[in-house]
Amino acid sequence: MRDVAVLGIGMTRFGELWDRSFREIGIEAGFQALVDARLSSKDLQAFYLGNMASGSLLEQEHIAPLVIDYAGLGGHHVAAVRVEAGGASGAVALHQGYLAVASGLYDFVVVGGAEKLTDVPDAVANRITGSTADQEWESVFGATLPGLWAMVARRHMHDFGTLREEFARVSVHAHAQGAKNPNAHYRNRLTLEQVLGAGPVAEPLGVFDCAPLSDGAAAVVLGPLETARKYTDTPIRVAASQVACDTMALQHRREITTLQSTVIAGRSAFDRARIAPAAIQVAEIDDAYSIGALVALEDLGFVEKGRSGPAFATGQFTGSGPTFVNPSGGLKAQGRPFGAVGVAQVVEIVRQLRGEAGERQIAGARWGLAHNVGGTGATSVVHLFERTA
Amino acid sequence: MRDVAVLGIGMTRFGELWDRSFREIGIEAGFQALVDARLSSKDLQAFYLGNMASGSLLEQEHIAPLVIDYAGLGGHHVAAVRVEAGGASGAVALHQGYLAVASGLYDFVVVGGAEKLTDVPDAVANRITGSTADQEWESVFGATLPGLWAMVARRHMHDFGTLREEFARVSVHAHAQGAKNPNAHYRNRLTLEQVLGAGPVAEPLGVFDCAPLSDGAAAVVLGPLETARKYTDTPIRVAASQVACDTMALQHRREITTLQSTVIAGRSAFDRARIAPAAIQVAEIDDAYSIGALVALEDLGFVEKGRSGPAFATGQFTGSGPTFVNPSGGLKAQGRPFGAVGVAQVVEIVRQLRGEAGERQIAGARWGLAHNVGGTGATSVVHLFERTA
Repeated sequence: MRDVAVLGIGMTRFGELWDRSFREIGIEAGFQALVDARLSSKDLQAFYLGNMASGSLLEQEHIAPLVIDYAGLGGHHVAAVRVEAGGASGAVALHQGYLAVASGLYDFVVVGGAEKLTDVPDAVANRITGSTADQEWESVFGATLPGLWAMVARRHMHDFGTLREEFARVSVHAHAQGAKNPNAHYRNRLTLEQVLGAGPVAEPLGVFDCAPLSDGAAAVVLGPLETARKYTDTPIRVAASQVACDTMALQHRREITTLQSTVIAGRSAFDRARIAPAAIQVAEIDDAYSIGALVALEDLGFVEKGRSGPAFATGQFTGSGPTFVNPSGGLKAQGRPFGAVGVAQVVEIVRQLRGEAGERQIAGARWGLAHNVGGTGATSVVHLFERTA
Repeated sequence: MRDVAVLGIGMTRFGELWDRSFREIGIEAGFQALVDARLSSKDLQAFYLGNMASGSLLEQEHIAPLVIDYAGLGGHHVAAVRVEAGGASGAVALHQGYLAVASGLYDFVVVGGAEKLTDVPDAVANRITGSTADQEWESVFGATLPGLWAMVARRHMHDFGTLREEFARVSVHAHAQGAKNPNAHYRNRLTLEQVLGAGPVAEPLGVFDCAPLSDGAAAVVLGPLETARKYTDTPIRVAASQVACDTMALQHRREITTLQSTVIAGRSAFDRARIAPAAIQVAEIDDAYSIGALVALEDLGFVEKGRSGPAFATGQFTGSGPTFVNPSGGLKAQGRPFGAVGVAQVVEIVRQLRGEAGERQIAGARWGLAHNVGGTGATSVVHLFERTA
């Protein structure tokens, strides 16, 4: 396999982008990434688009060639492919772009993620969110994604003594970071009291434990590592790209406080890169629901099972330990345009490893991790990145 | 790049499968393919699923892990990824499976295609079909896929003198072959008079010029060619796998009687395999609309531009020339469960190259081609296969 590098990055602001269409945000992020990689669009050979639900949201399938068309590249040797894996669509698209370059068939690939969630009523968007859980065993009986994650939270509290305040701190941290991120959907700080006092969505999860519905797009350019220095001064090597899957329905799992898909993808990725979790200085962890970030930190091996709550609350992942989590503000504050999330995480990691993250910069970051989840973990994706300069 | 081979094939019957769910047909095809490849499910490392519109049709996204889950493989190191490219979803999924094995990251991959189109009213399914054209420039103004293809037919008649009778013969041939195919949606023969006398859908296209809405699933197992003989006596080499894209809307093209995406994918594939079209003994060509098959035969270089009508009518592609087209019955008679189509074409090609096609067998077939189109050609995919034994 050829080594693969990230050569360029781009993203739109995340938020309620009512004045801009899907195709507009899609090409904005893609062109930014191409310019950042000092490539012209004629160098592009393939385009992978992570998108969860354009069919239901926009009555538009076939959305990858649509973006290529709007970029003026229709009929010009660009293969455009949409990839869908619920909320993990963006990271799975990155996996495909990685394989495309690693295989040798393609040299330069743009991986984009895009979603427009605020052009439909929230009730519709929430119903569509539920379509990433098991329709026949969960959604049809009224289970929602927040409801399912609330069960995970309750069980984690029961089994390990995790406190409501502990997962609330995930969101407090997210907003503290979002305040420093000009692309973030939310740039206001939240206090612990505000998170705890917010109205319930599915107890114990409140409004501020759940990431928002956002519009937005993000993109990265991938290419062979061996020639990467022609295109960037700081090639970022993709040290591992691993996808793993689990049952769709929570009830079909042996235990629900572990996401087996995250465990498998994480272990495979660390094995492949030959490093341990403590080697990671900066990690973007899926916090679509605050409890999910705590569970992921355990499943990825950053902290012992059941100990994530106290560890997070005492600052282990927000400055006092070796790994800083969610410098972007995470899904909670940077935003959650489903298909774009997994790509935006990588944009942040690359910024950090390049030393271009401004007031969010984690000093001396060399290794980064991105973790993206679909549904309640039927899909998990782990990517590892290394600064090579 | 590693050479890739098809090790196993499987498919369900195509048709109105009201008594069986999406997950059931998905795993039936997949298990058939695994058994055919003499593999057990624990050998499987990745699963690619071509599916066009499960979100709109079934309110179920995240459908690749769903099938893996139902197969009992959730939490077992299988990466499951859904790929969508309108009616070309199946062939694009095959392209991803090909890259996955070629890259070396995965050894054994199942590529499946599945769609359930008859569980919703036809009007809903037809609206969803339209979502593979350009929503903002075509569908919203009332253009349907048959309507758009009817414009291609009219222009082809105008520019080249193609006769209504000539593209009607594509459907007559399809049903003659479907009659020999136990998995086909339609096994009745059609006369030329029946096709010409059928009610109009979008003139000059009648009911029998348009492939049906079907349910069904198909699957193939891919693996490295170098070890293929352990799993099959007749490994079929994937000699080329090429995807190309064009504008979504017909009106944005310089001419509409050529699909630029098919031209590019076809040329790239033949260049890669170092053969000419006349070397192909058996080809599955996308005949979602009868005129589309004629246009494709020109775009792929099997016949000079504008000459496909007379060539088809005089039997050049149905027995008297070097290349036999659509032995399966094509989309028209074998059926059209969108995401499954591109994979089912490959199942037929592999049967033919193995010499296992029964009364449909084309004697001595060594090279095969599969051609799959999304929308009106915003995506085209061309695969070439070679018998290696």
